[in-house]
Amino acid sequence: MEVLSADELERIHLASLEILEEIGIAFLLPEALQILRDAGADVDDATQMVRMDRGLVEESLAHAPSQYVLHARNPDHDLTFGANHINFGTVGSAPNVSDLERGRRPGNFADCVDLVKLAQCLNAVHFCGGYPVEPVDLPPETRHLDALHAFATLTDKAFHAYSLGRTRILDGIEIARITRGISKEQLLEQPSLFTIVNSSSPLRIDGPMLEGVIEMARHNQIVVITPFTLSGAMAPATIAGALALQNAEALAGIAFAQIVNPGAPCMYGGFTSNVDMKSGAPAFGTPEYTRAALAGGQLARRYGLPYRSSNANAANVVDAQAAYESEMSLWGAVMGHANLVLHGAGWMEGGLTASFEKMVLDAELLQMMAEFLNPIEVNEDSLALDAIREVGPGGHFFGAKHTLARYETAFYAPLLSDWSNFESWQESGARTATERAHTLYKAMLAEYQQPVLEAARREELEAFVSKRKEEGGAIAT
Amino acid sequence: MEVLSADELERIHLASLEILEEIGIAFLLPEALQILRDAGADVDDATQMVRMDRGLVEESLAHAPSQYVLHARNPDHDLTFGANHINFGTVGSAPNVSDLERGRRPGNFADCVDLVKLAQCLNAVHFCGGYPVEPVDLPPETRHLDALHAFATLTDKAFHAYSLGRTRILDGIEIARITRGISKEQLLEQPSLFTIVNSSSPLRIDGPMLEGVIEMARHNQIVVITPFTLSGAMAPATIAGALALQNAEALAGIAFAQIVNPGAPCMYGGFTSNVDMKSGAPAFGTPEYTRAALAGGQLARRYGLPYRSSNANAANVVDAQAAYESEMSLWGAVMGHANLVLHGAGWMEGGLTASFEKMVLDAELLQMMAEFLNPIEVNEDSLALDAIREVGPGGHFFGAKHTLARYETAFYAPLLSDWSNFESWQESGARTATERAHTLYKAMLAEYQQPVLEAARREELEAFVSKRKEEGGAIAT
Repeated sequence: MEVLSADELERIHLASLEILEEIGIAFLLPEALQILRDAGADVDDATQMVRMDRGLVEESLAHAPSQYVLHARNPDHDLTFGANHINFGTVGSAPNVSDLERGRRPGNFADCVDLVKLAQCLNAVHFCGGYPVEPVDLPPETRHLDALHAFATLTDKAFHAYSLGRTRILDGIEIARITRGISKEQLLEQPSLFTIVNSSSPLRIDGPMLEGVIEMARHNQIVVITPFTLSGAMAPATIAGALALQNAEALAGIAFAQIVNPGAPCMYGGFTSNVDMKSGAPAFGTPEYTRAALAGGQLARRYGLPYRSSNANAANVVDAQAAYESEMSLWGAVMGHANLVLHGAGWMEGGLTASFEKMVLDAELLQMMAEFLNPIEVNEDSLALDAIREVGPGGHFFGAKHTLARYETAFYAPLLSDWSNFESWQESGARTATERAHTLYKAMLAEYQQPVLEAARREELEAFVSKRKEEGGAIAT
Repeated sequence: MEVLSADELERIHLASLEILEEIGIAFLLPEALQILRDAGADVDDATQMVRMDRGLVEESLAHAPSQYVLHARNPDHDLTFGANHINFGTVGSAPNVSDLERGRRPGNFADCVDLVKLAQCLNAVHFCGGYPVEPVDLPPETRHLDALHAFATLTDKAFHAYSLGRTRILDGIEIARITRGISKEQLLEQPSLFTIVNSSSPLRIDGPMLEGVIEMARHNQIVVITPFTLSGAMAPATIAGALALQNAEALAGIAFAQIVNPGAPCMYGGFTSNVDMKSGAPAFGTPEYTRAALAGGQLARRYGLPYRSSNANAANVVDAQAAYESEMSLWGAVMGHANLVLHGAGWMEGGLTASFEKMVLDAELLQMMAEFLNPIEVNEDSLALDAIREVGPGGHFFGAKHTLARYETAFYAPLLSDWSNFESWQESGARTATERAHTLYKAMLAEYQQPVLEAARREELEAFVSKRKEEGGAIAT
């Protein structure tokens, strides 16, 4: 679905090129400035502003692949990014965590572990997108080692590492390699890790993030450049202006990654939303957000790049608002042909809280969306003229042969939705969807089974993490 | 958006014609059988089955207009049905009513009146779609007179009358005419009332409904034919089969209306959903429902007919499920290019309850959808390159001239969504969206102002209703 005409798309593209050529983007890392200067960009060392002409941008982008695979340690969970493939991930990076029983509390490792386990249990969740909640009870120097160890051992789905400086991202790359049991050469052929790089909008990319881009690109791992262009705050108070800025920043980051390693797998991330003009509070799943998500998809397709979107909302409690804002976000992602949907399950409060109940609720939304995308089967059998003839006027299809033959699989079976009548629902406790999600997540965690990691890989992983912890972790950065 | 290829659409069309030609539809009214026989249909008086060949069906459909206006007594509320016009109505026909304070209770006139007043208050609600809740405390013979009087006096938006026999629908037509202050001749030129006719799926249209079709078509008022084809119950357990049946029944009803009065305004209604195969319970806002809503739009467009869809859900409480099922239904309606969205605000429990809080919640969903459908403005001013240059790297747009100039109108301002941060939200009572909706609907009712009805029309209306009540109302039927 398209919300921009071809002309409008081109105007946004051209505005972005004008930003890149005339205003420039600040690359806050001397090493990056040198790389860009060597490639022919106009670099101002004093301001760290880099101006790239359209020739350099377009030539760099031309190397970026339009489709690639992110390998998981269980090949059943390998994910293809590109074309019409859509993949949903967990919430990432929330500072707080909540559930109905224990309320809202600061992020911690025990909850982080439980959320990763839940991600492993939920079929609708295809990958782990960053720490579902920040384990702030772990020391910052070694936090990434514990968390990556958790991803590697508690789930056999693909995962993410943060571009918070060179040391951490190299640890992430090595842990992904060990977990998959492949050589360094194989890793260069098989992307096995992804990183989200947010530009510091407007017009900046931070140093630690740029170190991440450099190392991930050099190792041929997946770099997702996502400007966080909040219209009215870090971006102009018009969707077109915010998109022009988003596009300039995304192209700058992707062009940089391509300059570092032409052909490295990159993704175009869109995360344009708007603030509440009265309070300055960020809002998500708004009509503006949905239109921007669709427009972002059109821009990504214009460059032949896979597209990343999100399942966002600004609600403080898992209620109707959380659900309808998430639906608005998800429809934007689905109709925008997003290939990677970050924060697909569990995001609340504009990203400030990861919720156990929301994770289950979102899994239902994601499964419904996946089922919606299945085509309607139209053939002689499904058209059912014989059944219509057999049942006749005023009859009932429930006992028809045609119905009995598809009794098990005819329709989507929900995870969370309760379709019982009011009286039955009342007798069984009159519980809201959120209350039911609470029971469900606990039952899932109780039944969680850790996916076996081959002994050799496990030993290598433990040895690596121990060694790196002894070395002090990321103290060098 | 299209979920059926041109070939698949044609196969469903052809399957429907086969149903109409070979199986037939039961028209449960001798008068209708005579009309159809005179038009050349094959009629079996014993079974009341009518077989129409494709020539008769297609010739009849050719007369149906693809666009027309439903006139309200306030011309600002006139509605166009056809092309990309989308109009949202209230919940209709719920036997129960509920709100947070008083709980769920049987329908009654006082609540019906309050819901009509609320419909008048909400800008997102464009018309009244049947009694929002059935006033079961009023006698059945005169209930329609009291309810139509309420529509005519409490709101200046367009309304609906039930096709429950000739007497009631003629009363509805007369009340619509009086309320608009027009002559009988003008009424024939200006549709001022609409009726929803549900076929008694499978393969039947009831007598009282057919009397409604006959009188509405003769008076050139709008007839919406909506088969209620619940896949697995009243329709085959495949979406394609349910659509074939829906299409046959809709075409039969519309062809009949066109035979009665060629050129009368008709609408194609789609309401295909599915049951829970385990319990037989009806489900709404399912992935199957959404796909069927999109397919229904494609079918309606194939015949050049305006399209009716719904905002449905099966939740028993105004919670996250109510919101996400409604969103799934609404996206089906919007992407299916529905022109009339019945049950747009207030529907719960598969239609068994009208909820005051859901009405406010849905108004938010409808407004968001309407805002989403506005195009993104792309021009030099909205692309905001000057503002991006002015703000520069790491700056903030909140104080920029470009932002200040659009401070008031930049973004959609929500009715119900709360975007405050967790602490502020907690301080202000930690209320869910449903609790906030409760406060909002009460405030709206407290501020409700009755739209003035011109004295002459009001007197004529009172006189008509009194006379008809003295006559006993609908006792003749």
